[in-house]
Amino acid sequence: MPDKTAARPAPTTRKIRFAVIGYGNIGAAAVRLRRFFPDLELVGVFTRRPLEKVKGVPRGVKVHPVKEAPRFKNRIEVALLCGGSATDLPEQGPRFASLFNTVDSFDTHALIGAYFKEMDRNSRAARKTAVISTGWDPGLFSLERVFHESILPAGVSYTFWGPGVSQGHSDAARRVPGVADARAYTVPVASVFKQIKRGGMIRPSARRQHIRVCYVVPRRGADRREIEEAIKKMPNYFLGYETTVTFISREEMKAKHSRLPHGGTVLRSGKTIGGRRHLMEFVLQLDSNPEFTASVMLAYARAASRLNREGVFGAKTVLDIAPAYLSARPREELLEELV
Amino acid sequence: MPDKTAARPAPTTRKIRFAVIGYGNIGAAAVRLRRFFPDLELVGVFTRRPLEKVKGVPRGVKVHPVKEAPRFKNRIEVALLCGGSATDLPEQGPRFASLFNTVDSFDTHALIGAYFKEMDRNSRAARKTAVISTGWDPGLFSLERVFHESILPAGVSYTFWGPGVSQGHSDAARRVPGVADARAYTVPVASVFKQIKRGGMIRPSARRQHIRVCYVVPRRGADRREIEEAIKKMPNYFLGYETTVTFISREEMKAKHSRLPHGGTVLRSGKTIGGRRHLMEFVLQLDSNPEFTASVMLAYARAASRLNREGVFGAKTVLDIAPAYLSARPREELLEELV
Repeated sequence: MPDKTAARPAPTTRKIRFAVIGYGNIGAAAVRLRRFFPDLELVGVFTRRPLEKVKGVPRGVKVHPVKEAPRFKNRIEVALLCGGSATDLPEQGPRFASLFNTVDSFDTHALIGAYFKEMDRNSRAARKTAVISTGWDPGLFSLERVFHESILPAGVSYTFWGPGVSQGHSDAARRVPGVADARAYTVPVASVFKQIKRGGMIRPSARRQHIRVCYVVPRRGADRREIEEAIKKMPNYFLGYETTVTFISREEMKAKHSRLPHGGTVLRSGKTIGGRRHLMEFVLQLDSNPEFTASVMLAYARAASRLNREGVFGAKTVLDIAPAYLSARPREELLEELV
Repeated sequence: MPDKTAARPAPTTRKIRFAVIGYGNIGAAAVRLRRFFPDLELVGVFTRRPLEKVKGVPRGVKVHPVKEAPRFKNRIEVALLCGGSATDLPEQGPRFASLFNTVDSFDTHALIGAYFKEMDRNSRAARKTAVISTGWDPGLFSLERVFHESILPAGVSYTFWGPGVSQGHSDAARRVPGVADARAYTVPVASVFKQIKRGGMIRPSARRQHIRVCYVVPRRGADRREIEEAIKKMPNYFLGYETTVTFISREEMKAKHSRLPHGGTVLRSGKTIGGRRHLMEFVLQLDSNPEFTASVMLAYARAASRLNREGVFGAKTVLDIAPAYLSARPREELLEELV
């Protein structure tokens, strides 16, 4: 029987031609990061916006209307789907999975199962490979959770997010009347974190593990107390979390809060025989959330290409992909230098 | 074309019957840890020692002379090869790879390539699957190094070992004349670690990253200064490292140094656009090195069994195996709960 499933990427003999679909934070980062991935070659950027409104595209990079993407069916090997999970990906994902191999960072945890099924059906029918829900959570954090739990079956797993900017919470705070601009940070509670690191198998809720720190630029004449109260009472976002609201000037917002740092920790505290303790921990500290997410997607573009070239079709998550598929290095070199 | 390579473990319909070959620290741990892996079923322990000299085997566990292992060819699905890398595995590995699916923790970095080839040839010829070099370094640390480097191509990778007992260095110190007992710890240098965590892309040697801390029980009348000097000057072990030697009593050795804690950190400090920094970090803190290593091997026994049942033969490293293969949970459940 031929050993079709050996997880050994063939040496990359020709470049992987990829496209960026959607030119927001992540799409723009993927374009600029391509020089760190020399085995990938950018075909172009595809956008829904009028082309004259797309700013900051590096010289030499071609921008096309997204509706022309099907014409590129034979020129694009992997499409990086850089749209949002709320409205873009549920529509774009299945559509493009019928045309190209795809990589996305679909992150609506509750809907991943349904999204997987749809992506699987379409990509399989087209003999394409769709790598879904990459990035870091879901994505790298998912991987770690599976390793941790499989190796230390008796234990408790924790995910801490931050310290970092939550764009969803920032947007929510910005919708409060009287708010000109807002930035919301998610910050792990240090005392809970320390307790777990010392071996305490506590079971705090996400709301006890994190606090929300908001910086708000108020509109002229707005009632600050009302703003603060409206933010703190916003269900699904701030209600139930310890939240601080600090009012700052537009200048301070620009100077101190224009970057998008993020990160987090996945941790498992496990027991073996006689109460012996074992901690497994994975930590990310990211100056730029979109740049790191784009880097993860670019690495998984390699995996999408290689799996497809090997005849492995359908939807895959990070859990389904052997680590060697992410590397540009030949397998023999990995064996020698990284194992 | 049938999708033979989909990395989707089938639900475990029958237990994975495994054997422990070699009853040292790791083998004994694997036997005792089996209750945390209820989808695995222990067939027995195989040892080279006279059976009456094998102590501490839990009641109900059968012990057999290792030379009888071939008789169990059809009763053992996965053999955990728990011997040492220096002399046991180079001989036992290829031999048992022709009889059973195997999992080992072969850790002589420089010889992994040659070992892989031999294991691959024998297991492939026998339509078996041999998972080599599991454990944590090589093993989990290898995985992390590949993820880190693939995702952050511009950066520097670091491996810190410890704080933990180095059994090789303890044995070496014990061979010094006048030493009744010794325990050597490897300890990362905190200042170097902090510098890297703050984003410094320094390139220290392993000898600058770690110190060695030795506890020695001297024989009656031995010259302590001579012992200290002999240890500190031992080439390949202590020479070139900052080493401390502390003399203690036999009672203190037993009370404070009879466990085998270990751990370490794999870290990558990477850059993206405009000098933005990203840190990826994986940390292990282990009360018991052999118990954690055995846990990793038990999780990879699942992978060996599943790959083989799917018709994937030959030698594999942790880099070749999709993470989902390690979990006892059905793939749909992983998708729903851990992604």
